[in-house]
Amino acid sequence: MLGEIKGLNEECGVFAVWGHEEAAQLAYYGLHSLQHRGQEGAGIVVSDGDKLSSHKGLGLITEAFKEGDLEQLQGSSAIGHVRYATAGGGGLVNCQPLLFQSQTTGLAVAHNGNLVNANHVKEELERKGSIFQSTSDTEVLAHLIKRSDETRFEDQLKDALSYIEGAYAFAVMTEDKLLCAMDPNGLRPLAIGTIGDTYVVASETCAFDVIGAEYLRDMQPGEIISIDDSGMHSELFSTATSRAICSLEYVYFARPDSNVDNINVHTARKNLGKEMAKEAPVEADVVTGVPDSSISAAIGYAEATGTPYELGLIKNRYVGRTFIQPSQALREQGVKMKLSAVRGVVEGKRVVMVDDSIVRGTTSKRIVRMLKEAGATEVHVRITSPPITHPCFYGIDTSTKAELIASSYTVDEMRDLMGADSLSFISIEGLQNGIGRDKSEPNCGQCLACFTGKYPTEIYDDTLHPHDKIMNG
Amino acid sequence: MLGEIKGLNEECGVFAVWGHEEAAQLAYYGLHSLQHRGQEGAGIVVSDGDKLSSHKGLGLITEAFKEGDLEQLQGSSAIGHVRYATAGGGGLVNCQPLLFQSQTTGLAVAHNGNLVNANHVKEELERKGSIFQSTSDTEVLAHLIKRSDETRFEDQLKDALSYIEGAYAFAVMTEDKLLCAMDPNGLRPLAIGTIGDTYVVASETCAFDVIGAEYLRDMQPGEIISIDDSGMHSELFSTATSRAICSLEYVYFARPDSNVDNINVHTARKNLGKEMAKEAPVEADVVTGVPDSSISAAIGYAEATGTPYELGLIKNRYVGRTFIQPSQALREQGVKMKLSAVRGVVEGKRVVMVDDSIVRGTTSKRIVRMLKEAGATEVHVRITSPPITHPCFYGIDTSTKAELIASSYTVDEMRDLMGADSLSFISIEGLQNGIGRDKSEPNCGQCLACFTGKYPTEIYDDTLHPHDKIMNG
Amino acid sequence: MLGEIKGLNEECGVFAVWGHEEAAQLAYYGLHSLQHRGQEGAGIVVSDGDKLSSHKGLGLITEAFKEGDLEQLQGSSAIGHVRYATAGGGGLVNCQPLLFQSQTTGLAVAHNGNLVNANHVKEELERKGSIFQSTSDTEVLAHLIKRSDETRFEDQLKDALSYIEGAYAFAVMTEDKLLCAMDPNGLRPLAIGTIGDTYVVASETCAFDVIGAEYLRDMQPGEIISIDDSGMHSELFSTATSRAICSLEYVYFARPDSNVDNINVHTARKNLGKEMAKEAPVEADVVTGVPDSSISAAIGYAEATGTPYELGLIKNRYVGRTFIQPSQALREQGVKMKLSAVRGVVEGKRVVMVDDSIVRGTTSKRIVRMLKEAGATEVHVRITSPPITHPCFYGIDTSTKAELIASSYTVDEMRDLMGADSLSFISIEGLQNGIGRDKSEPNCGQCLACFTGKYPTEIYDDTLHPHDKIMNG
Amino acid sequence: MLGEIKGLNEECGVFAVWGHEEAAQLAYYGLHSLQHRGQEGAGIVVSDGDKLSSHKGLGLITEAFKEGDLEQLQGSSAIGHVRYATAGGGGLVNCQPLLFQSQTTGLAVAHNGNLVNANHVKEELERKGSIFQSTSDTEVLAHLIKRSDETRFEDQLKDALSYIEGAYAFAVMTEDKLLCAMDPNGLRPLAIGTIGDTYVVASETCAFDVIGAEYLRDMQPGEIISIDDSGMHSELFSTATSRAICSLEYVYFARPDSNVDNINVHTARKNLGKEMAKEAPVEADVVTGVPDSSISAAIGYAEATGTPYELGLIKNRYVGRTFIQPSQALREQGVKMKLSAVRGVVEGKRVVMVDDSIVRGTTSKRIVRMLKEAGATEVHVRITSPPITHPCFYGIDTSTKAELIASSYTVDEMRDLMGADSLSFISIEGLQNGIGRDKSEPNCGQCLACFTGKYPTEIYDDTLHPHDKIMNG
Repeated sequence: MLGEIKGLNEECGVFAVWGHEEAAQLAYYGLHSLQHRGQEGAGIVVSDGDKLSSHKGLGLITEAFKEGDLEQLQGSSAIGHVRYATAGGGGLVNCQPLLFQSQTTGLAVAHNGNLVNANHVKEELERKGSIFQSTSDTEVLAHLIKRSDETRFEDQLKDALSYIEGAYAFAVMTEDKLLCAMDPNGLRPLAIGTIGDTYVVASETCAFDVIGAEYLRDMQPGEIISIDDSGMHSELFSTATSRAICSLEYVYFARPDSNVDNINVHTARKNLGKEMAKEAPVEADVVTGVPDSSISAAIGYAEATGTPYELGLIKNRYVGRTFIQPSQALREQGVKMKLSAVRGVVEGKRVVMVDDSIVRGTTSKRIVRMLKEAGATEVHVRITSPPITHPCFYGIDTSTKAELIASSYTVDEMRDLMGADSLSFISIEGLQNGIGRDKSEPNCGQCLACFTGKYPTEIYDDTLHPHDKIMNG
Repeated sequence: MLGEIKGLNEECGVFAVWGHEEAAQLAYYGLHSLQHRGQEGAGIVVSDGDKLSSHKGLGLITEAFKEGDLEQLQGSSAIGHVRYATAGGGGLVNCQPLLFQSQTTGLAVAHNGNLVNANHVKEELERKGSIFQSTSDTEVLAHLIKRSDETRFEDQLKDALSYIEGAYAFAVMTEDKLLCAMDPNGLRPLAIGTIGDTYVVASETCAFDVIGAEYLRDMQPGEIISIDDSGMHSELFSTATSRAICSLEYVYFARPDSNVDNINVHTARKNLGKEMAKEAPVEADVVTGVPDSSISAAIGYAEATGTPYELGLIKNRYVGRTFIQPSQALREQGVKMKLSAVRGVVEGKRVVMVDDSIVRGTTSKRIVRMLKEAGATEVHVRITSPPITHPCFYGIDTSTKAELIASSYTVDEMRDLMGADSLSFISIEGLQNGIGRDKSEPNCGQCLACFTGKYPTEIYDDTLHPHDKIMNG
Repeated sequence: MLGEIKGLNEECGVFAVWGHEEAAQLAYYGLHSLQHRGQEGAGIVVSDGDKLSSHKGLGLITEAFKEGDLEQLQGSSAIGHVRYATAGGGGLVNCQPLLFQSQTTGLAVAHNGNLVNANHVKEELERKGSIFQSTSDTEVLAHLIKRSDETRFEDQLKDALSYIEGAYAFAVMTEDKLLCAMDPNGLRPLAIGTIGDTYVVASETCAFDVIGAEYLRDMQPGEIISIDDSGMHSELFSTATSRAICSLEYVYFARPDSNVDNINVHTARKNLGKEMAKEAPVEADVVTGVPDSSISAAIGYAEATGTPYELGLIKNRYVGRTFIQPSQALREQGVKMKLSAVRGVVEGKRVVMVDDSIVRGTTSKRIVRMLKEAGATEVHVRITSPPITHPCFYGIDTSTKAELIASSYTVDEMRDLMGADSLSFISIEGLQNGIGRDKSEPNCGQCLACFTGKYPTEIYDDTLHPHDKIMNG
Repeated sequence: MLGEIKGLNEECGVFAVWGHEEAAQLAYYGLHSLQHRGQEGAGIVVSDGDKLSSHKGLGLITEAFKEGDLEQLQGSSAIGHVRYATAGGGGLVNCQPLLFQSQTTGLAVAHNGNLVNANHVKEELERKGSIFQSTSDTEVLAHLIKRSDETRFEDQLKDALSYIEGAYAFAVMTEDKLLCAMDPNGLRPLAIGTIGDTYVVASETCAFDVIGAEYLRDMQPGEIISIDDSGMHSELFSTATSRAICSLEYVYFARPDSNVDNINVHTARKNLGKEMAKEAPVEADVVTGVPDSSISAAIGYAEATGTPYELGLIKNRYVGRTFIQPSQALREQGVKMKLSAVRGVVEGKRVVMVDDSIVRGTTSKRIVRMLKEAGATEVHVRITSPPITHPCFYGIDTSTKAELIASSYTVDEMRDLMGADSLSFISIEGLQNGIGRDKSEPNCGQCLACFTGKYPTEIYDDTLHPHDKIMNG
């Protein structure tokens, strides 16, 4: 279900377009379809070939951009960004794209992911006189590009990338060129599409559908693409690549209508539900999914087990930023927002509740109780990802190991803690079968670090970005 | 799918609470769960036993009420309202509850439904010197109560109701009493619940779940209930009653987690899908529903036909009031908001698209095209309500008969117009079987007027409220 | 100085225009120039000959009207209103013009003044079945017009006016006619102007200057003017008239660039300063006025005494509604907003501080202390109105007699309470000489009730509108 | 009169406080009193000894800071800034104080003035790898501090200042120290005050009055003061100093209640009016000043000539950012906002109109016409500054020489252009006599560059900051 409820959040969606006379508008609609990847801030930088112009704002893109803001962004190329800001690191100054204006040229940077050695590099840069306005690790890239001795923009970027490690899908733009780069492990997705002669790049393909673009291909680990008025060119900045795309993109983050690295997300999820059904079937009356992200898996589980799929849980569509929170007294009395159990569906029934993941476990516990209070006689919890036991350093806000319930409790203990009648997590194998990537690649080309603790990159002592997090992995 | 897309809109949700120290807060959360019944304005009036206080605003309840607004509404009883305003009749002055202050006592009125003889009564009242501030038919009730020669508040209300005809679920409050009334046909739903000694009344039971209230019973056609500090009392103001609840409440309007007149809406819809499957099965690869209101029916159709249910259409959750509309050029290029077809699911597939109703037909046409552009090889449209051929005069904004596509075209013509490979509407019988109300009642206790033209009340020449609508029925 | 600081507030400014294609725009600019008469709400109703349309909002007119609001108000005639709302009686529902829609015709009413028998009339109307949506006394007029048996609109208004007493300048508009009326004592000002064939009516002539209109004449006590496409017509609805215009309009309320009943306000105030100088000269180094309303009088006092006029007190121009108030600790430490004494001007000097009036005395006390803290060696207070000892029932919020410092203390006591070295109030004669109206009229045609307790109309027990005020006069 | 009307604008006000538990609040009130120095943006950075926190926003400080924003700024020291943004260089990113966060320490910078060699230094820094986020010249200082090889903060600042030239009053803060610096010519004012043990620094002394602080002294050209918990320390970073304070601070910018370099601004202006009277007396009936900044001078002129001072021009106090501009048609018809001539005062009179300066001449022309249309028989314009013939490079937005009317026309030509009956500018001598600074200093310690073209610092080809301005001086 939604990150906002559970505390599992990916940081950011990236969009870029080159060569379209309504570039800012396309970015607006593209980012709008990526809104699920970040709701704390949004920004667009356009180039008119001569100068870069920027507009950013806090909140949803519909809040950050008002009628008229788009009109000010004249130009045929644009990069854009939606951001999830962790507490303390928020504020407009950290919204992206970051824009740097020099005497001769501008530079805009948008980033999805997280650098694991940002603090090391920052210290080094500060020793050399750099100063930073944001607390974002993204600013590092701009400094590295600027300090490069290379002259070709692509080479400056390559040079800069040689200093950084971690997860990144970057879009970097000057007045006359757009570069995109993907880290050697391809941890975050980035796809390329076209509308006639126009190139578009986006974190997910749902952004192509919304603007009528055609999917061309996904970017490759270690690849830089360069787009300008002469077309698109590709080169590798690293050959030591090994695809390890974040498994949770399929399980949880991406929109079901997106294809991630050429696999449809809804279908992958439905298959995860089917795998789950094979691994942990249970006698029950109804199957329900936690909206929105677990619906597909619940359908698959229902289909595979022959148990009816029902809407046993409903999400209120009108919960917004400005919602007035209930008082403690009302909350205890049972006032609940966001999610309700459907009494007419679950009363007197044995319910399979399919969810995509468990982080702290508090939300799952609340939902189990909700279902029981609505009359469910049994609640069987099925989780379509393995237990998350290790923190993520690649852009997902899974906090410290201590907060991950699966790192401290057994499955049986967790079942009891949440008051469920049974609890099963999918196996690593089930996860890989369900998603259905190429089995010939190591780990099927997936990052499994949060389940296994085996990180595809080196991890530094100070990787854990802000707020005194301590790495236990 | 959503009324905002299709132009089929019910006007309003009503909520009332008596005897709770956080009455305004409960109203806020209750109305929030009724938000799908109206997004144009929201209001709450509270009584502290001594005086009535009001706050109203345009937009969603989260927009109309800011932190602090609730705190100003001190009192242990409240009535509230969310409103869908038809064009031209909007503005804050028409937002409800309407509040009337006299020298001696206040009177607040909230209304769901539509009076068919409002203009007649208004004219009569104006001849006697009444003046009206709103264009709402609801104001009529207050004038009639005020002019009654009766002394008991219940009798004044009865007196007033004797002059009006049509669809109404009323909540009426003075400083020391709450009255609710349902029209003799029970066209609009209204349910009663409790939280300990507190009484709550709401258009739908989902409002009870959200505040932790227990369902007690539905109101009966021709019933007035009176609630004050001595408890709840019931009486009938009319015995010429015959239940004819709006069929579209089940098909389309109500939230799936609500029970309407004691029937769960999701279950009813799923059964409509199953009935549809019996009436019009088709060889296909996937079944998909138009989100949100047709999901349940699609699940039922899939289950009954054994065709896999898939998320073939996705709705963007972040579309809001402040959304910047795409230019005509972009729209033609294919920029689409709100709804996308999922290429990864429908490409190369024969698709059954289940929808709840067809009004003008333009949206259905758009969705069929969207599915085909995403690669569907066939699109079979199944509609879980019969063709809507007649306008509604009971609070649903189905405009004039001329705008209703089914009043001008045959099913085959409609199929061709929307480019579908097949099109079926459920039969009246299928509708009644699916919803599953008591078959011993005339029409199973349902209003079928929009399908049959047989209205349960008299209809007047000037019924068609504002804006020069012409009745063809 | 400003009413907001002192608690002396007039309620409302009225504006009307007939026969101009940008009627709403003219109303906007006209009301903007009348903004000093009320900052709590603003509204405009336009007629396009066929129907009335309205927009109202809380706050300044620049806050209540946004780009686009004016465009929606299409029509060639308009009435508008700016309002000062007393506590408790606020809210949008009480903002004017009030608009009443009947089956046949609309009616809009804007009012400056206060009716002294509103409650009597309201009770009578409620007995006959009227219901009221606002707590405003203005709504009474609409009911009376509506209930009139007359057929001509002018006669209906005359009929209605025969029931009410008090202070009023009314603008009343239907789709095809504009009527304005002034009470038989002419307590509140209302002037008529023209722009070519267009007629405009406004509470003050400054509204004419701002829109390029020419002053025609002031309305007369007991006069109704009727304006429609055939031109302007005048008639008297009462012959028992006796001009008694509010003295404080000259002293305090009106803008210095307005002419009120053909006398320039700045000039009147300057002459009041000169009269004051004759009555109470004092040896001093500088004369300063309390901004903004006492500047003119201070200039006159300085000129007459030969003492230099200086800016000894400065008002901060940027104080607005959204200002964050200082904490108590900071306030005690001396944080002051709105008004500062200019140390560089008053240090070591004997200062004459000219102010226009004293209501509760708290502000005057604060200013005297401010001047002394800034180094003034002596502070001599000169007030250009006589002591206010009686409440106003004609639209000025002077509260109860108990709150009026001059009703409980002698001049010497007040001087000591405020820590001044001397204190003088202008005499009634000085007031009349300064303003310079026709001496042949009784009281020079001025209302002096707040100084003398002699009210020009009858006063009723329940005159004191809301909030349990008790009349002591 | 106001810069907004005339296009003559100073950029910025600076405020700092050290050692007060409500530091952010004091900054808020201090900046509020400096609001006339900049209305486009406001910001405050606080230190709690451990870290720096920031809040900035566009618009007035009452718009940029909402209830709650101040509470988030916990700390006992603060620097703040109000900004006037020239077109194109606006946006939140350019609002100050600029805040730079490094791994080890934060740095906040607020600046009033303009650096003449900013572009030179920026280019040099960019060559060394610096990147800039803002287009503000202020960012340069932070980079220079950061790159300094010195270890003591004061020495780093001295080092940095050695590279820059121009006009500056800087407040620079780290977690544990506040530094303020004034350029060697002291072009912009900066004064020091105290509240007990608390130090405050502000662009003008009116900020002291508002918070109850006592004036200590003005900063000296070439001085750095350092304030921390051990108290205040002063040192000179340059001995090649020569006071050349901006003359227009006295004539126009500063608030009349401020003392600038120990001279009261109101008194200085009044004396300018008296000097003007000596230089260019004229037979007239009334003297009026253009509000607000020319009021004092008009009083002085009136006093010296014995002509009565009157309010012949009135400014509307309610003009705000959200004001809807009149259509072209209405503007031609005479709709005027902001300023009106008082017909009752000027009709049939010979008027002396005192204004402080003429930049483009368009406003003066409009006012003369306004007075004549209101009936003035003669209008004699008296300007209390000499003709502005050269652009300012020290922070005043006087644009290019070409736009300065006095650089292209003689006084007689200007008189005819604006339709005045006579026009006189004060002489340089009159200006110096009126302000009354020490005559033993060169140019009385005043900068006269905009009148004479003799700039106190070197001027570079690219001094003319953004937007392709060309220097003609």
